[in-house]
Amino acid sequence: MKIGIYGYGNLGKGVELAIRQNPDMELFGIFTRRNPKTVKTLTGAPVYAAEEAEDYAGEIDAMIICGGSASDLPEMTPMLAQHFNVVDSFDTHAKVPEHFANVDRAAFTHAHTAIISAGWDPGLFSLARLYMNIVLPDGKDYTFWGRGVSQGHSDAIRRIPGVKDARQYTVPVPEALERVRRGENPELTTRQKHTRECYVVAEEGADKALIEKQIKEMPNYFADYDVTVNFITEEEMKRDHMELPHGGQVIRCGSTGDGEHKHVMEFSLKLDSNPEFTASVLVACARAVVRMNGREIFGCKTLFDVPPADLAFMDADVMRKKLL
Amino acid sequence: MKIGIYGYGNLGKGVELAIRQNPDMELFGIFTRRNPKTVKTLTGAPVYAAEEAEDYAGEIDAMIICGGSASDLPEMTPMLAQHFNVVDSFDTHAKVPEHFANVDRAAFTHAHTAIISAGWDPGLFSLARLYMNIVLPDGKDYTFWGRGVSQGHSDAIRRIPGVKDARQYTVPVPEALERVRRGENPELTTRQKHTRECYVVAEEGADKALIEKQIKEMPNYFADYDVTVNFITEEEMKRDHMELPHGGQVIRCGSTGDGEHKHVMEFSLKLDSNPEFTASVLVACARAVVRMNGREIFGCKTLFDVPPADLAFMDADVMRKKLL
Repeated sequence: MKIGIYGYGNLGKGVELAIRQNPDMELFGIFTRRNPKTVKTLTGAPVYAAEEAEDYAGEIDAMIICGGSASDLPEMTPMLAQHFNVVDSFDTHAKVPEHFANVDRAAFTHAHTAIISAGWDPGLFSLARLYMNIVLPDGKDYTFWGRGVSQGHSDAIRRIPGVKDARQYTVPVPEALERVRRGENPELTTRQKHTRECYVVAEEGADKALIEKQIKEMPNYFADYDVTVNFITEEEMKRDHMELPHGGQVIRCGSTGDGEHKHVMEFSLKLDSNPEFTASVLVACARAVVRMNGREIFGCKTLFDVPPADLAFMDADVMRKKLL
Repeated sequence: MKIGIYGYGNLGKGVELAIRQNPDMELFGIFTRRNPKTVKTLTGAPVYAAEEAEDYAGEIDAMIICGGSASDLPEMTPMLAQHFNVVDSFDTHAKVPEHFANVDRAAFTHAHTAIISAGWDPGLFSLARLYMNIVLPDGKDYTFWGRGVSQGHSDAIRRIPGVKDARQYTVPVPEALERVRRGENPELTTRQKHTRECYVVAEEGADKALIEKQIKEMPNYFADYDVTVNFITEEEMKRDHMELPHGGQVIRCGSTGDGEHKHVMEFSLKLDSNPEFTASVLVACARAVVRMNGREIFGCKTLFDVPPADLAFMDADVMRKKLL
């Protein structure tokens, strides 16, 4: 199957590399809003102008849309779903119903298939929560993120005057994690679940105490957390903080029988590269939209609606033999 | 939906209790090969003779078959799939292709839907292996079981002359688990992955040294493992070893990009009651066979073929809102 990539940042590059790991797939090309001539791809894949994408509708089996959730995907995914089977990683939780409805309308009207909100959270973590809720209806689940780089929080720090560069790590509180794993089902505040570690390069002469205060008091992003701020040099930033690791845990504890038997289920990820791992999930979803479209299952879906076998390159009998 | 239970051992009792946790389900009754009059159920559910099951075909939406994999299920599941949508927990790995084919033929011919090999392994662990293989095609996965009671190994010890009762715990080797979690992708022998802990009540005057030797040298079951044998009293057995806990881990480490980024995925279970947890999975699968049958998806399936949403009681929009 032929795959298009729409948007060429970290995620798009991850998709480009992930396609090489899937022998049934071929990268048709990359669509960018920049001048295509100025974009050099990692694998030498051809680059096209984003606005010409629909001209290639007949040649692409699925388009993986690698834009941001804030302003790109709400426009791009419904627009592209008119011309292609599409996959995106939309992660603005509160706006999922609206995005789902918009993509569903566009895809359904044009007999296309879409999967939105793919990746690891939303994505594999959502699946973990769903399977866990199915099997243990009486229980409570928890999601912890990290240790990993939050790009949104890093960007928020960078917007503070006097900050040259910044990297923010989200870190689960080990004691909270242990209590959940022991099946205590504790009530945990935001502060009790995660801490935030900031590494900041200040501009020369900047007031570091003021920067630290502004970070720690920033509403939504930092005010509800225990925050540590470390000022480092530009060299240290380049040496120690250029990767984008992430990960986390979904844990559910529930009971069966007359409530006397407790069960703890856990799904965890430890990722060297958040964008490359997310890209791997998107690529598997591209396979699924093509297959489901072939079975005339149209409209917008999430991973909840996808038979796991549709995501896999492997044949069904091999799958049963090797993995069941 | 109305559910029947075919077979009333530990697993059947677990299903009986699990149905109460699922508000869209009702227990029609229990089918037993014993004299129905002699069977007292945990919840007061009615009991019927197994051989009369097909008389109730029109009144039962799905039959959950709670027999053993060695001799019961290969007969029962294809036979009952002629009359019902069915679910089983068949776990004889080498015979899955044959069982699948037999159940598929029976179910398909009679426009029924079947899910075989449901539970946690095979079942949720299989799903974990599949999703992990999908997302990280270049990698290696490991399954560890325990700490938990292996009923097959406990039975094997009980067959030794002079043994009155026995319980065998399968225990993962902590160092092996740690190496896998660190992403080392080690080659591990059977002995390096698990140890086996046995608790044995000997008959009066029995030769304990001989019993220990016979356990440790038993081919397939124990010879390839480091085994400890503890002789205990009947009272200790009753006090400390009456529960059936189990669990384990599926771990996959794989790489993306140019192989420079490693990722570790892990799914783990810690279960107070193996049969009750397995039963909870079977009950969710009963929901799925009824729904898939309603969409005219006939024949034999495994969890690989089931859209996760079909297993869930929750509505699709609530699911997206709460779990995505």
